[in-house]
Amino acid sequence: MGKESFRTIQSLGRDELIDELMEHNALSSDLVVKGYGDDSTVLNHQKGYQLLSSESFMEGVDFDLTYVPLHHLGYKIATAAVSDIYAMNGSPELVLVNLSVPNKISVDMLKEIYRGIGAAGKDYEFQIGGGDLTASHQTLGISISCYGEVAQDKIIYRKGAHEGDAVCVTGDLGGAAAGLRILMREKRFWEEQDQQQAFQPDLTDYEYVVRRQLVPVARKDFIEKIADLNILPTSMIDLTQGLASELQHLAEASEMGVYFYQAALPISLDTRRVADEMKEDVDKYALYGGEDFELMFTLPEEQVEGLADEFSDFTVIGQVTDKEEGIRMQKAEGEVVVFDGSGQQL
Amino acid sequence: MGKESFRTIQSLGRDELIDELMEHNALSSDLVVKGYGDDSTVLNHQKGYQLLSSESFMEGVDFDLTYVPLHHLGYKIATAAVSDIYAMNGSPELVLVNLSVPNKISVDMLKEIYRGIGAAGKDYEFQIGGGDLTASHQTLGISISCYGEVAQDKIIYRKGAHEGDAVCVTGDLGGAAAGLRILMREKRFWEEQDQQQAFQPDLTDYEYVVRRQLVPVARKDFIEKIADLNILPTSMIDLTQGLASELQHLAEASEMGVYFYQAALPISLDTRRVADEMKEDVDKYALYGGEDFELMFTLPEEQVEGLADEFSDFTVIGQVTDKEEGIRMQKAEGEVVVFDGSGQQL
Repeated sequence: MGKESFRTIQSLGRDELIDELMEHNALSSDLVVKGYGDDSTVLNHQKGYQLLSSESFMEGVDFDLTYVPLHHLGYKIATAAVSDIYAMNGSPELVLVNLSVPNKISVDMLKEIYRGIGAAGKDYEFQIGGGDLTASHQTLGISISCYGEVAQDKIIYRKGAHEGDAVCVTGDLGGAAAGLRILMREKRFWEEQDQQQAFQPDLTDYEYVVRRQLVPVARKDFIEKIADLNILPTSMIDLTQGLASELQHLAEASEMGVYFYQAALPISLDTRRVADEMKEDVDKYALYGGEDFELMFTLPEEQVEGLADEFSDFTVIGQVTDKEEGIRMQKAEGEVVVFDGSGQQL
Repeated sequence: MGKESFRTIQSLGRDELIDELMEHNALSSDLVVKGYGDDSTVLNHQKGYQLLSSESFMEGVDFDLTYVPLHHLGYKIATAAVSDIYAMNGSPELVLVNLSVPNKISVDMLKEIYRGIGAAGKDYEFQIGGGDLTASHQTLGISISCYGEVAQDKIIYRKGAHEGDAVCVTGDLGGAAAGLRILMREKRFWEEQDQQQAFQPDLTDYEYVVRRQLVPVARKDFIEKIADLNILPTSMIDLTQGLASELQHLAEASEMGVYFYQAALPISLDTRRVADEMKEDVDKYALYGGEDFELMFTLPEEQVEGLADEFSDFTVIGQVTDKEEGIRMQKAEGEVVVFDGSGQQL
């Protein structure tokens, strides 16, 4: 992008800017009476429970503009917000986007972020409802609040796991952490060069893990599948943080313990290959990595087979136990380790 | 506060921190099925329209920690968010708080912010429903999303003003801008000293305007009064930005013009005194200052007296005209000025 095409935020009026950004809002529905352009977003919703979730991403902490394309950033924060709605077995309906924008960000850069949010809106079927824009001195900040809905008899909380239930996770774990390792390594290489060129690393060999980091996907497919099959997990949570701390959250809310198997953790070959290259323990990626946005859920043992017949992309990693037993992991060699309250291995 | 009492955010687990912060959540209601501690906040709401509003404040842009006490900051951003709900004639029910927190902020400082939000929650009758905490390298950022409700036959949009309606504003204008001028001047004085002492200016003479800046109040009282009187303004908007640009928003949404009188602008003596001291034009504070969080509304002429009999804290500043006439202000000396689309005086 040449300098001549850098349209500053100030060059547009605020309202004109919002109009341009909202071009990426693909959907409309009867739910939304007034999406933006008034003091509040107005919804007309007469049934079930309403769900609200909220995510904040801050430049330099949650993302690095060196290697995060802006439309991916928009897609990813939307994924993070809707993932929390899916984790309650709900459907996202609408997001509000709050941006804190420094001068280095142009109108077209903001539009890239909205393009990503709009693409997520198509995939996850939500509208963009409004939000706020504020200036920032140095760093870009994004918050998304997501509004969703769920029938009262279909909601799934973190609490509700019963002793003996199978503990399951969708997809595979640790990929996002592996992708981040690769991107950080490539950035370090680039910083050691003279940086005359833009950051354009060849990531062909790492495509899977880099995608897991940059454009993670929330598990709408799983929520739709269990609705079709009329299967209702007893508890559910999304894996925003690593498995270890989310296990803690689920067990605590359910007042239960969990016994799980290191060897059962679903980890892709691509993720294993990165850990080998980095000379790191791949289980650490899965246990502490986070940002995979997979779902963890508990299900009575007798229902596992029925689900597996229709949906293959999940793994049983262990079972729910008595609370007194805490969170324990049986290592591949047979040794059992205990996780303490903070999700750290003892 | 001594250094020994600086509890870092890292010294607490995330969950423990949220528990401490949520001690400031004073209310609970049947609406909120699950307030926080799960993936989403769960609401059970069966009637009327739902309203969502969102506000972001960024350190160094929207507030300056030199002179903004943290509990005031919490109160003010909550005021900004609920003001948008009142501007639709709704009642706030719940807020989600997203914080981006640098290392310089301690646990107890965060608790001060929540104390302010909690105090606003008591005044405006909302609960704190959850949100997100993320790290930040340098600057503190706060976003609040507010969820509210309004009966379908009571909602008031920006659109709806009719030709001939009176244009009214609650309270007085420009006070928040005057307060900001004073605080910035005192900070400049302090910076020119050796800064050995904490910033402790004597603001006794400027108490009213400084309060307007630091702890503005959203007009719940007005919303309750018009409900009692069964008066329904034809359009309404809150004065987050200055009067000039909010007039533009209201007129545009209603496809109308507005003719108003400079001499009618309600400006307090304290605000005038600050403008005199600063050798500035006090009308600029009122027209462009913003952050007063007063309400502007339009009402059929024949209903104005009935409202005035029961509620004294509002002023008629002009009337709604045909769209072609635009936004025009008659100056005290009789001259008429036109405002263009960006809210600037021509």
